[in-house]
Amino acid sequence: MRIILIGGTGTIGREVAKALSASNEVISASRSSGDLRIDMANPESVEAFFQGVGKFDAIVSAAGSARFGPLDDLEYEDFLFSFRNKLMGQINLVRIGRNYINDNGSITLTSGILGREPMPGGSAISMVNAGLEGFVRAAQLELERGVRVNVVSPVWVQETLLAMGNKLLEGMPAALVARAYVASVTGTMKGTVLEVDDYT
Amino acid sequence: MRIILIGGTGTIGREVAKALSASNEVISASRSSGDLRIDMANPESVEAFFQGVGKFDAIVSAAGSARFGPLDDLEYEDFLFSFRNKLMGQINLVRIGRNYINDNGSITLTSGILGREPMPGGSAISMVNAGLEGFVRAAQLELERGVRVNVVSPVWVQETLLAMGNKLLEGMPAALVARAYVASVTGTMKGTVLEVDDYT
Ligand SMILES: NC(=O)c1ccc[n+]([C@@H]2O[C@H](COP(=O)([O-])OP(=O)(O)OC[C@H]3O[C@@H](n4cnc5c(N)ncnc54)[C@H](OP(=O)(O)O)[C@@H]3O)[C@@H](O)[C@H]2O)c1
Ligand SMILES: NC(=O)c1ccc[n+]([C@@H]2O[C@H](COP(=O)([O-])OP(=O)(O)OC[C@H]3O[C@@H](n4cnc5c(N)ncnc54)[C@H](OP(=O)(O)O)[C@@H]3O)[C@@H](O)[C@H]2O)c1
Repeated sequence: MRIILIGGTGTIGREVAKALSASNEVISASRSSGDLRIDMANPESVEAFFQGVGKFDAIVSAAGSARFGPLDDLEYEDFLFSFRNKLMGQINLVRIGRNYINDNGSITLTSGILGREPMPGGSAISMVNAGLEGFVRAAQLELERGVRVNVVSPVWVQETLLAMGNKLLEGMPAALVARAYVASVTGTMKGTVLEVDDYT
Repeated sequence: MRIILIGGTGTIGREVAKALSASNEVISASRSSGDLRIDMANPESVEAFFQGVGKFDAIVSAAGSARFGPLDDLEYEDFLFSFRNKLMGQINLVRIGRNYINDNGSITLTSGILGREPMPGGSAISMVNAGLEGFVRAAQLELERGVRVNVVSPVWVQETLLAMGNKLLEGMPAALVARAYVASVTGTMKGTVLEVDDYT
């Protein structure tokens, strides 16, 4: 398969790239690194990207930022930023990418555990993750030509917690998180939220 | 109790107003009708509203619009509109209203069945409803002084279906839907999604 991987240089994306490269051609893209440039938060950038990239069988997104912080500190602009980047950015990949993807192709997005298990400081991220999962369930009903869309919900990643200096939680190594992405691309599930624990 | 009801002139809001007025003072507000003016999509309008309204014990929102339509027709601007109005509008009521509400007050918002049971044409609405539920679960963890937040998830309302000329579905009369709002205001639940079927 020829696979477009958005965010292939990130903590999770690097391991997804490794896992998928074994038996596929992986084209990595982000705003500033990898093989090609794309800003998924910008619909024109997404349209131009898919127009130029040639035929492909899968889109995988391990990308997106959203703002973490207490309600007291999160301004309107922080919610708007989170919406535009992680939520609408990934929705743009579906809205636009589905018109270019090969028959029976798959699209795999990323939400996160805060969508279902909240924590203080996570209100904008919980909004984004749960909203993306709602979108995926609905969008699947309208995809044609056998195209599938799923969303992987990672737990805290071990490498991320180490980088943050958090010693209370262990987290899951990114290489194990990557297995859920492989399952989404190679499997038959559709309109589904993949909990990473189910694929380790 | 002194209750602020946003959208008290809508199909659901009218019945919520009736049900709550029996034993409370209900102040109805929207962009163009009721006792006071507020545009919840506009943070400045929300701030000015709460600054001017005096002390209160509950906020109830039966308001918000989001765009329905096939993925082929929904543009970036339709998702942005839906985000700004129904999703961020209600988040604004929590972000800002929680600073003005009395101790042990309650905030009740509205999502909808498409958040968990999708249908074709509902991708923006599913995003909004699920996103709002994610926000509510998380925001509750940061509310202080005993303040509670919940979200009611209505099914299709009978009066709405009749107005749309839909004869396939029966829907639930708005007066029954209103019972879940009363339960949220008078009960003790917090950070919860109230399915209206559980309160009829
Ligand atoms: N790490 C965790 O513990 C964890 C847990 C749960 C969920 N998640 C989610 O998993 C995803 C990946 O996390 P991560 O920790 O691997 O992130 P990361 O290390 O920060 O990497 C993010 C990647 O996404 C790219 N990216 C960001 N915004 C983009 C945009 N608008 N357009 C195109 N590419 C963009 C970045 O490259 P450029 O900067 O060059 O664009 C980078 O390659 C995120 O959505 C995150 O919320 C992570
Ligand atoms: N009816 C259904 O079948 C159904 C099913 C599931 C969920 N819901 C949800 O339930 C809520 C109410 O539905 P409904 O059918 O009763 O709606 P409706 O009849 O259209 O009434 C909406 C009410 O909200 C107010 N409103 C809209 N945008 C506002 C804003 N930005 N700021 C302040 N007030 C605003 C409107 O007044 P102004 O125009 O004057 O502002 C009106 O009073 C909506 O969120 C809807 O999505 C409805």
